[in-house]
Amino acid sequence: MMRTGDEMYALCTELFPICRSITGDGVRQTLQMLRRIVPEMTLHEVPSGTQAFDWTVPKEWNVRDAWIKNSKGEKILDFQKTNLHVMGYSLPVDKKVTLAELLPLIHTQPDQPDAIPYVTSYYKERYGFCMTQNQKDALPEDTYHIYIDSELKIGSLTYGEILIPSTEGNEDEIFLSTYVCHPSMANNELSGPAVTIYLAKWLLEKKHRRYNYRIIFIPETIGAITYLSQHLPEMKKRIRAGFNISCVGDDRTYSYVASRYGDTLADKVAKNVLSFHYPEYKQYSFLQRGSDERQYNAPGVDLPVCAVCRSKYGEYPEYHTSKDDMGLISPSGLYGAYAVYRDIIEALEYNHRYQVQCVCEPQLGKRGLYPTISQKGCYDDIKSMTNFIAYADGSNDLIDISNSIHAPVKHLISIAEKLLENHLIECMEE
Amino acid sequence: MMRTGDEMYALCTELFPICRSITGDGVRQTLQMLRRIVPEMTLHEVPSGTQAFDWTVPKEWNVRDAWIKNSKGEKILDFQKTNLHVMGYSLPVDKKVTLAELLPLIHTQPDQPDAIPYVTSYYKERYGFCMTQNQKDALPEDTYHIYIDSELKIGSLTYGEILIPSTEGNEDEIFLSTYVCHPSMANNELSGPAVTIYLAKWLLEKKHRRYNYRIIFIPETIGAITYLSQHLPEMKKRIRAGFNISCVGDDRTYSYVASRYGDTLADKVAKNVLSFHYPEYKQYSFLQRGSDERQYNAPGVDLPVCAVCRSKYGEYPEYHTSKDDMGLISPSGLYGAYAVYRDIIEALEYNHRYQVQCVCEPQLGKRGLYPTISQKGCYDDIKSMTNFIAYADGSNDLIDISNSIHAPVKHLISIAEKLLENHLIECMEE
Amino acid sequence: MMRTGDEMYALCTELFPICRSITGDGVRQTLQMLRRIVPEMTLHEVPSGTQAFDWTVPKEWNVRDAWIKNSKGEKILDFQKTNLHVMGYSLPVDKKVTLAELLPLIHTQPDQPDAIPYVTSYYKERYGFCMTQNQKDALPEDTYHIYIDSELKIGSLTYGEILIPSTEGNEDEIFLSTYVCHPSMANNELSGPAVTIYLAKWLLEKKHRRYNYRIIFIPETIGAITYLSQHLPEMKKRIRAGFNISCVGDDRTYSYVASRYGDTLADKVAKNVLSFHYPEYKQYSFLQRGSDERQYNAPGVDLPVCAVCRSKYGEYPEYHTSKDDMGLISPSGLYGAYAVYRDIIEALEYNHRYQVQCVCEPQLGKRGLYPTISQKGCYDDIKSMTNFIAYADGSNDLIDISNSIHAPVKHLISIAEKLLENHLIECMEE
Repeated sequence: MMRTGDEMYALCTELFPICRSITGDGVRQTLQMLRRIVPEMTLHEVPSGTQAFDWTVPKEWNVRDAWIKNSKGEKILDFQKTNLHVMGYSLPVDKKVTLAELLPLIHTQPDQPDAIPYVTSYYKERYGFCMTQNQKDALPEDTYHIYIDSELKIGSLTYGEILIPSTEGNEDEIFLSTYVCHPSMANNELSGPAVTIYLAKWLLEKKHRRYNYRIIFIPETIGAITYLSQHLPEMKKRIRAGFNISCVGDDRTYSYVASRYGDTLADKVAKNVLSFHYPEYKQYSFLQRGSDERQYNAPGVDLPVCAVCRSKYGEYPEYHTSKDDMGLISPSGLYGAYAVYRDIIEALEYNHRYQVQCVCEPQLGKRGLYPTISQKGCYDDIKSMTNFIAYADGSNDLIDISNSIHAPVKHLISIAEKLLENHLIECMEE
Repeated sequence: MMRTGDEMYALCTELFPICRSITGDGVRQTLQMLRRIVPEMTLHEVPSGTQAFDWTVPKEWNVRDAWIKNSKGEKILDFQKTNLHVMGYSLPVDKKVTLAELLPLIHTQPDQPDAIPYVTSYYKERYGFCMTQNQKDALPEDTYHIYIDSELKIGSLTYGEILIPSTEGNEDEIFLSTYVCHPSMANNELSGPAVTIYLAKWLLEKKHRRYNYRIIFIPETIGAITYLSQHLPEMKKRIRAGFNISCVGDDRTYSYVASRYGDTLADKVAKNVLSFHYPEYKQYSFLQRGSDERQYNAPGVDLPVCAVCRSKYGEYPEYHTSKDDMGLISPSGLYGAYAVYRDIIEALEYNHRYQVQCVCEPQLGKRGLYPTISQKGCYDDIKSMTNFIAYADGSNDLIDISNSIHAPVKHLISIAEKLLENHLIECMEE
Repeated sequence: MMRTGDEMYALCTELFPICRSITGDGVRQTLQMLRRIVPEMTLHEVPSGTQAFDWTVPKEWNVRDAWIKNSKGEKILDFQKTNLHVMGYSLPVDKKVTLAELLPLIHTQPDQPDAIPYVTSYYKERYGFCMTQNQKDALPEDTYHIYIDSELKIGSLTYGEILIPSTEGNEDEIFLSTYVCHPSMANNELSGPAVTIYLAKWLLEKKHRRYNYRIIFIPETIGAITYLSQHLPEMKKRIRAGFNISCVGDDRTYSYVASRYGDTLADKVAKNVLSFHYPEYKQYSFLQRGSDERQYNAPGVDLPVCAVCRSKYGEYPEYHTSKDDMGLISPSGLYGAYAVYRDIIEALEYNHRYQVQCVCEPQLGKRGLYPTISQKGCYDDIKSMTNFIAYADGSNDLIDISNSIHAPVKHLISIAEKLLENHLIECMEE
């Protein structure tokens, strides 16, 4: 099973060097590589200038090269080494500047003097460079040649979508969203696309799916807003639970970011699964949000979306810097998140309300489900089964029962199957 | 008052040697002895083979004698010394066996090597013996003569019932259930029948009873299921609160076992009374259930039944072994539980919603209910009365008020009577 | 701003020597002095004998002088030194008594031997004196001349009322109540009238008032009951929140006394404002009530009234003794309470439900409300604004939002104004 962890890590390694932004060829190249794993993904282009609620799809940005040379012609900063050196959405530039002119164009992370920060200026046209605070501090008086070979043009915003149908033909959907707009950073955000594409692969291989699955790979914020502006009515009608998948690659912890009121089915299943998988997981309120759950939970959108992460964006020191590199994530880190999301999806698939079919406790013994000799302690092993039966009164769904009787949904699914076989419980109609 | 404690203890002493099981003459003999205290008890026989929901009333079992002799003819185990030596519902046997053949027939309690466990096999026909682990370990190679003089026959299941009518002629009932199927053990379960029969006696002597009382003495599990299968519709219609009375004889603590959702009137009054009587009482969720509250709370039955115990079944080391003997229980232990159940019943009897009869605070002073000189601290003594009045707004019952103002229901009953006399409050219609 | 603190303290100093009671000229004199600050106050006289629910307006009491002389004619107790020396509502007396006859007439505070207690006997006719326990203990055998020049006559109960209209013409009211019946004590109770009259002054100066304000200065208990008996229907219809203003003058702490169920708008705003102003404030349940919130919350009255105090009545050692003097309160103590009540009133004035006017997050950047360069940490300053928008979904009022996003209402008022200007939110109809 850990093979999937290795595959996800290899995928991230391959995607790492690509210079992604909210538009442009880096996004297209990334989506093409994801399609090799799930060819069912369709690609979509939304033209610059398209209105999306309060926003407008911006121009498309591409960058080919960038550097700063000193007066000796030595490159003291080179986009080819890491694309973080160029501020995202920089205009092209090619000119000589003094040190005094150069300094305001350089962004650093003063509290982490050896890290290059990730900086963008999507909605105000300017240019800029990023380097470490140490490097900036050591820049001598000189004449510098600054060069950015970029282009900002009427083009389009690109996203990928995978729609996986229910095998039951029902209309309800589970929604997964991740983003593909970050340049060379690993946990935030190659882990999200990698885990999500392998979840899509696993879902496609499942024999039975209660739900439809809507899975999107978009640029953050503007991509989510654009997608919502084109799909909101059907999403509101169909989506029962959704997850924003981001920062799912390291090994340090598990986290959960609540929806606006923390009370949706998505929150319920996420908290249940994490409480058994990793009881010390960190709970963040919606006040600590930061990714596309912002849009999915905005007033008027109101989708039941939360997030399960490993180390959450904004909460680990390497976040949004060059330190968020391939050494920060691992096959086991990615696999842990993948496994949790699979458990979440399985719990949702089985999350029916169940109704016991007899009055009083059933006589389990005559069905071979119970010890025939009664002695102190002999019932401990079948406690989950009798507890399941006690709460299968039609008012609780499987997650409620799991919460009530302190047994993982995973374990209850196998009990439910045994009881269904023996006609001791039935699934209730929705 | 402690005389009642002594009487209950004497009753247990007399009942202790009888070999009870879920059917048979031991149960009949026990019920006859209880009838000496409350002749109003009626006895009922339900034939073997009667269907009871998912269950069937089993054959009737009686045992006269049992022993194991070694090759010298010495009895190394003797039913006459304690009836726990025979596994409940053992088939008759009379044969010689080797040590190797004997050992699998012997049940012990390995974690308590000097205790004889209580073991039964009601629904699979077999035979067996129980002894201490120490004795079993010391058995030499030998030829053993094993002998059980028992009988498993078409007969009946016996139970006792006491119905005590309301003096107001209303239909609502309080339900008390205890069980009479355990052989020679004291806390679990002679304490239950002893306390319950004396509660019945006290109820019969009361001049006024708001409620009807339905009190049953049954074999555990199959008895409760059988009784329910014959009375469920009327019970669901009438019962307002019920209690499974078990393990009410020792002095160590008080416990409460919640109903399925812990939210019935029975739970409410039990928690209220215990919180004043013994604030450190142990609260067990329904997941820690184990006695007939299992049936009364099963989906489809849904009766408002919880349990108040001293040391709860399954939670004390002597449970279901020969160590649960007459030394474990005491007159004060029994009396403590009896007193708590009386307080619970009194609280239910007075548990009306009350409505104050004037706007603003009444002028208590002119009725002699209030100090006429006002000085710091002078109102401390009548705080419960003014607090009672403040919350007697028609929305709270007496237990709610007790919980809100932190005063025991007992104390509030006397205040209520004073205020009723002065026409300052009235009982509200249900 | 602290000038208001000084003015309130000066007012208390001026009012301190007056001998107030629940009726009489001391009350009238006090109200006249308050009218110098707010001439809009109207004075009302309710005749002795008027029925008020379960109560009757008592006779009017006035006292001119009182003393005890020893046999040498020396005054050993003198009303002119402090009016606390005479038990409130004492009948006139002028006679010689032995020490043995004197002692039962003298009230002391044994647990505070150097304090003169505040003692009254409003509803039983008697006379009495108050002195320190130390003085009482030192009284020698002697013949004493006791003298009280008082009068108990058919007269009236006096109260003051200020009605300040809404500038919006709506019917809803905020209610403020304080009392003017305590003789020479400072925190309890000159602080209440002083803070309340300055709140009235501030309210009158406001350009815009959403609510009407009903502000009363009454004798405690009988005054509140009398006022309610004459105004209850309109008060129940109009009052949205009210506060009993008492003990608001010292510097030690802030306190809150809950309404009967602690769940009214008054409780909600009081707890919110205090939680930001003084997070360690003391919360008292309605069981710790003691002032006129008793009447406003009585069953049948059911007004949404709670109290915010500094050191609450009954909870500080000087309470109801001569130690509650002008040294106990301070300009800053009075001002602190005044400021909290102003914040409470402002929060109520702005406490609308707000609804964001676009789907998804608005693009704040294009309105100059958001940084144009995106880098780790750059959004910290505008978190309250984005959080406000996230919860401005029409279901939350301003206090709910403040509670949800942990930002003071004060701060949210300025954000709301900015968002209203930009048409990003709208106030919802009630």
